[in-house]
Amino acid sequence: MSNIDTMSVNAIRILSADGIQKAKSGHPGLPLGCAAAAYELWANHMNHNPADPQWPNRDRFILSGGHGSMLLYSLLHLFGYGCLSKEDLMNFRQLNSKTPGHPEYGHTVGVEATTGPLGAGMGMAVGMAMAEAHLAAVFNKENYPVVDHYTYVLGGDGCMMEGISSEAFSLAGTLGLSKLIVLYDSNQISIEGNTDIAFTENVQKRMEAFGFQTITVEDGNDLEAIGKAIEEAKADTERPSFITIKTQIGYGCPAKQGKASAHGEPLGEENVLAMKENLGWPSMEPFYVPEEVYDHYRKIADAKAETEAAWQVMFAAYCQEYPEMEALWNTYHDPKAGEKAVEACPDFWSKGEKAEATRNLSGQVLNRIKTYMPNLIGGSADLAPSNKTNMADMGDFSKENRLGRNLHFGVRELAMTAMGNGMMLHGGLRAYVATFFVFSDYTKPMARLSAIMGVPLTYVFTHDSIGVGEDGPTHEPIEQLAMLRALPNFHVFRPCDETETEAAWYAALTSEKTPTALVLTRQNLTPMPGSSREALKGGYIIDDCQGTPDVILIASGSEVELAVKAKALLTDRKVRVVSMPCMDLFEEQSDEYKESVLPKAVRKRVAVEALSDFGWGKYVGLDGACVCMTGFGASGPAKQLFDHFGFTAEHVAETVRSL
Amino acid sequence: MSNIDTMSVNAIRILSADGIQKAKSGHPGLPLGCAAAAYELWANHMNHNPADPQWPNRDRFILSGGHGSMLLYSLLHLFGYGCLSKEDLMNFRQLNSKTPGHPEYGHTVGVEATTGPLGAGMGMAVGMAMAEAHLAAVFNKENYPVVDHYTYVLGGDGCMMEGISSEAFSLAGTLGLSKLIVLYDSNQISIEGNTDIAFTENVQKRMEAFGFQTITVEDGNDLEAIGKAIEEAKADTERPSFITIKTQIGYGCPAKQGKASAHGEPLGEENVLAMKENLGWPSMEPFYVPEEVYDHYRKIADAKAETEAAWQVMFAAYCQEYPEMEALWNTYHDPKAGEKAVEACPDFWSKGEKAEATRNLSGQVLNRIKTYMPNLIGGSADLAPSNKTNMADMGDFSKENRLGRNLHFGVRELAMTAMGNGMMLHGGLRAYVATFFVFSDYTKPMARLSAIMGVPLTYVFTHDSIGVGEDGPTHEPIEQLAMLRALPNFHVFRPCDETETEAAWYAALTSEKTPTALVLTRQNLTPMPGSSREALKGGYIIDDCQGTPDVILIASGSEVELAVKAKALLTDRKVRVVSMPCMDLFEEQSDEYKESVLPKAVRKRVAVEALSDFGWGKYVGLDGACVCMTGFGASGPAKQLFDHFGFTAEHVAETVRSL
Repeated sequence: MSNIDTMSVNAIRILSADGIQKAKSGHPGLPLGCAAAAYELWANHMNHNPADPQWPNRDRFILSGGHGSMLLYSLLHLFGYGCLSKEDLMNFRQLNSKTPGHPEYGHTVGVEATTGPLGAGMGMAVGMAMAEAHLAAVFNKENYPVVDHYTYVLGGDGCMMEGISSEAFSLAGTLGLSKLIVLYDSNQISIEGNTDIAFTENVQKRMEAFGFQTITVEDGNDLEAIGKAIEEAKADTERPSFITIKTQIGYGCPAKQGKASAHGEPLGEENVLAMKENLGWPSMEPFYVPEEVYDHYRKIADAKAETEAAWQVMFAAYCQEYPEMEALWNTYHDPKAGEKAVEACPDFWSKGEKAEATRNLSGQVLNRIKTYMPNLIGGSADLAPSNKTNMADMGDFSKENRLGRNLHFGVRELAMTAMGNGMMLHGGLRAYVATFFVFSDYTKPMARLSAIMGVPLTYVFTHDSIGVGEDGPTHEPIEQLAMLRALPNFHVFRPCDETETEAAWYAALTSEKTPTALVLTRQNLTPMPGSSREALKGGYIIDDCQGTPDVILIASGSEVELAVKAKALLTDRKVRVVSMPCMDLFEEQSDEYKESVLPKAVRKRVAVEALSDFGWGKYVGLDGACVCMTGFGASGPAKQLFDHFGFTAEHVAETVRSL
Repeated sequence: MSNIDTMSVNAIRILSADGIQKAKSGHPGLPLGCAAAAYELWANHMNHNPADPQWPNRDRFILSGGHGSMLLYSLLHLFGYGCLSKEDLMNFRQLNSKTPGHPEYGHTVGVEATTGPLGAGMGMAVGMAMAEAHLAAVFNKENYPVVDHYTYVLGGDGCMMEGISSEAFSLAGTLGLSKLIVLYDSNQISIEGNTDIAFTENVQKRMEAFGFQTITVEDGNDLEAIGKAIEEAKADTERPSFITIKTQIGYGCPAKQGKASAHGEPLGEENVLAMKENLGWPSMEPFYVPEEVYDHYRKIADAKAETEAAWQVMFAAYCQEYPEMEALWNTYHDPKAGEKAVEACPDFWSKGEKAEATRNLSGQVLNRIKTYMPNLIGGSADLAPSNKTNMADMGDFSKENRLGRNLHFGVRELAMTAMGNGMMLHGGLRAYVATFFVFSDYTKPMARLSAIMGVPLTYVFTHDSIGVGEDGPTHEPIEQLAMLRALPNFHVFRPCDETETEAAWYAALTSEKTPTALVLTRQNLTPMPGSSREALKGGYIIDDCQGTPDVILIASGSEVELAVKAKALLTDRKVRVVSMPCMDLFEEQSDEYKESVLPKAVRKRVAVEALSDFGWGKYVGLDGACVCMTGFGASGPAKQLFDHFGFTAEHVAETVRSL
């Protein structure tokens, strides 16, 4: 290892340790242990251009062990990504800094994904590799490999213990995503101690079982061995690769290396100094990096800029030779593509006339829009026939057919959601994922990441209530709607008929920064005469009385019809029915609009929804009531369940009278 | 295969197909494919006694593929479990029947666990095997193996695709749970088609990597081979075993076998008849089982009753020789053990005097109660030092030390929760699990199962708000409290100080049918002078004014102190402060009590909680307000975050004045 390489690796260690020490908070173990591997990858193998972090054909790098964020920040700073100055590193973990505790997508340029929840990055990386494979198949022409990059992901024991990584890697192996390269920081240490206490499995063998090439680097500081391993990984064009890099947590800090205590707390001032001495660092001054090291990184960055420049030349020629592909490329990368597709689609809005399940209506929308939105891609966690998420004639994405737009995720809801996020983060694609609504529980940790990152992934959740029927309580959502409504920056739509289903898809496909879930019925629903695109306001009057109402019924989805029927029974009252397909969007409306729909003076309010009443208090207040589920469902024919649990027009009417 | 064996296996198929056909709903694929394996296991290997389904030393059998419930119901019926008559089978999937769509624990005798969400049974089975290993170490004496049984679990491709099974099996391998035997129904078919589309991994190799013995049965109808495999599995006393049984989905039904369409819908009347013909069944009459088949099952059941009788003789002798062990046994199996332990513990209730984080206080309670509650066992998903869940001097449960009461789950929140459920379902143990509150997201699908089953598992969730500080938005819970409050039959406690933390633990340890989560701070909280055991009512007046209040502040956890401080600023108002550590328990109180705490006439109400406002509308109504989080958190020192997001006494007071 040449001296400048050693210095460059140690610069990462020094900056990381200093940043964490100054913040008095953070995780030095990973940055110190993985500094060499990360340097070798970023300097000598990865195609990226610090001057243009958004270059579409850059190799992707995801730090799945997001707690090691100082590794990433140090790399971005040293390679000259304009976003991160030394002052930014000094503000690590401070409010409003560009260097938060865990890497945040959309907050810090060069961060490809928000990570922190362990394993999440593994799932997102698989999604990115899927996106690359699909886009390459769509766009590449002979001599024009305009989409041709690797996806690298670095994570540790925790990432490998989490089930999401098994889910994601099993599919990656099935799909033969050979341009996915996983770097496994194997340091044998977790927070509670040596990994022997909970993790003695043969990780490499598991990865081989999934269909990965596996490679071992015995010494995590051996740049040559790391480089060789990366080249071997690239050379396998059939299988994704998994490189086990044996590292020492907290390497370089004599008092801490190899110990659990190196993981998640500052090294301590004395230990930082001891580390600098141990590594032969030329200065004890915090954040000191020799100019020659900066020069070295700058030279590398300049060379990388040339790689992009060459690609730009190729891309320009490609656009000239294939103008139709240039147009397609622009469509794929147009944030307004959803809106344009809906405009172009002559029958997107199609007022339904017969009773139909909203899951079927959703499937019809999808199949009407699919040709107008060629970058729409998605699938289900092995429930496509039930979720109605198949796009007819669009093919199945597989090892053999990279053009397929229907994805088969297998029974892996959590990884599916991470992969969906990863596909969207990659750029160029609009993705959707699907499962039964009750299993949104499994998607939750990654749905939260969609919301935090502002990734407008679409979720198709069918079988949305006790309407599931015979499958019983394990399959009947109750609290899931409240769970997702409570999630910030996440729109949950529960449409009542075709018009509202179309509105929900419209909202989903045109959203730029907010994920959208469609919550759909298994059973048929009657089209509502009053339904309209006002649904895009989240809540609106769907059936009104003359003058000021003395009762307001508020409902969503399958219960809107019930509310309308209850209104018909309440002939002695002035009843307004409000359809509330999306509470989140309703909350975003002006106070005036909200008041016009739900006048504060009207206190007799009843919410009707065959799910938990949790969250309805906001609209029914202290004087209203809910006709909702108060416990779990049951197994039986759906119609009987609705009656059994009180979802009848009569019971709603009685509830109104009892106020 | 003898004729009576063939007939007995086919009886399972016939009853399953008929039950599903009559219900016009259900999943015949699994019962038909696995009938032979299940018969061989239940008839010739499993220790169970249909006359005493609660025999503590019975072998456990969990149907992880819960959609195949008719397999289990047919077995229970044929073996003469008193609970299930032929009429019950005829009522499959009907409201209020004993034969719901998926097996429900506590609803149908003989069902060891509620299953349906795929993979859940795998996790629970691992927990049961952990419980067996621990209890055997505690109770067995030379010549008295009073705890000595196997745990069998049957699941299919879907169970193996779900990440939870990787998480659970990795730990099972680490722990060397040799009495865990997994039967893998490998039929190569999932709902979307052949498993090749999403699942080409080498499952056996993965299981070997986890440390399992793996065995293959090439023909799922070969009783001898199945029997031999089970015996081989039992013979390995070092490793858990994984038996791949190659089956044909829907076996026996000519038009359906081997096809995805066999999975999840009735075979169709003609196909049922064709199946009966194909299998040489003596009658076409629905639900017909020849008397000789019943006789055969009866003889087996009689023999099994003798196995228990022999155990009872041994157990009686054991109790005579070791009366102290009998007493201990009774303590372990006493549903009131928690209450008695609290009574016996002289310092369980200990009013705190100095500021302390509730996570620390929780750790102290745990360490005070541990000796009085010897069957208390638990641990964390690799965060014990942060969750404060270690019981000092109680040892670590491991392959070498089965007596250890501290569990190391690894970074596997979902499987941890399933294992916790499994340990509780086994009987004899009181389990707790722990992680950061934000990662309750990962536990959600299994927390839901705790609630559905009525298993009083305890959840310790620490780092409960933006008080997390520097770790930032991925680690700061926002909507998790709403998510769990919305879950039926689940108590969420967010205590404000030591007294309330003790009350929360009291509620958790004494609950018989409801799981309890403790939501605890990272940062120090001041003891509240007004806090009391009234916390067990969920909400109570912690600081009152003279006479009827004109303002009510409602808060939980770290925000109670804030509310009290705001009250001090509002000298011109009559302010009541209500501490609401557990909304769920407050809802269970009488209307009179609720009115006494929150008089309906008082409309100026402000909720203060550094989490989502979702769900507070119920208490603040249309005229109140919330001082809550409206989006995600941020990375920075905790104190700064509280100020930044408006959690100051001044802002609370202003909010009151604005009403």
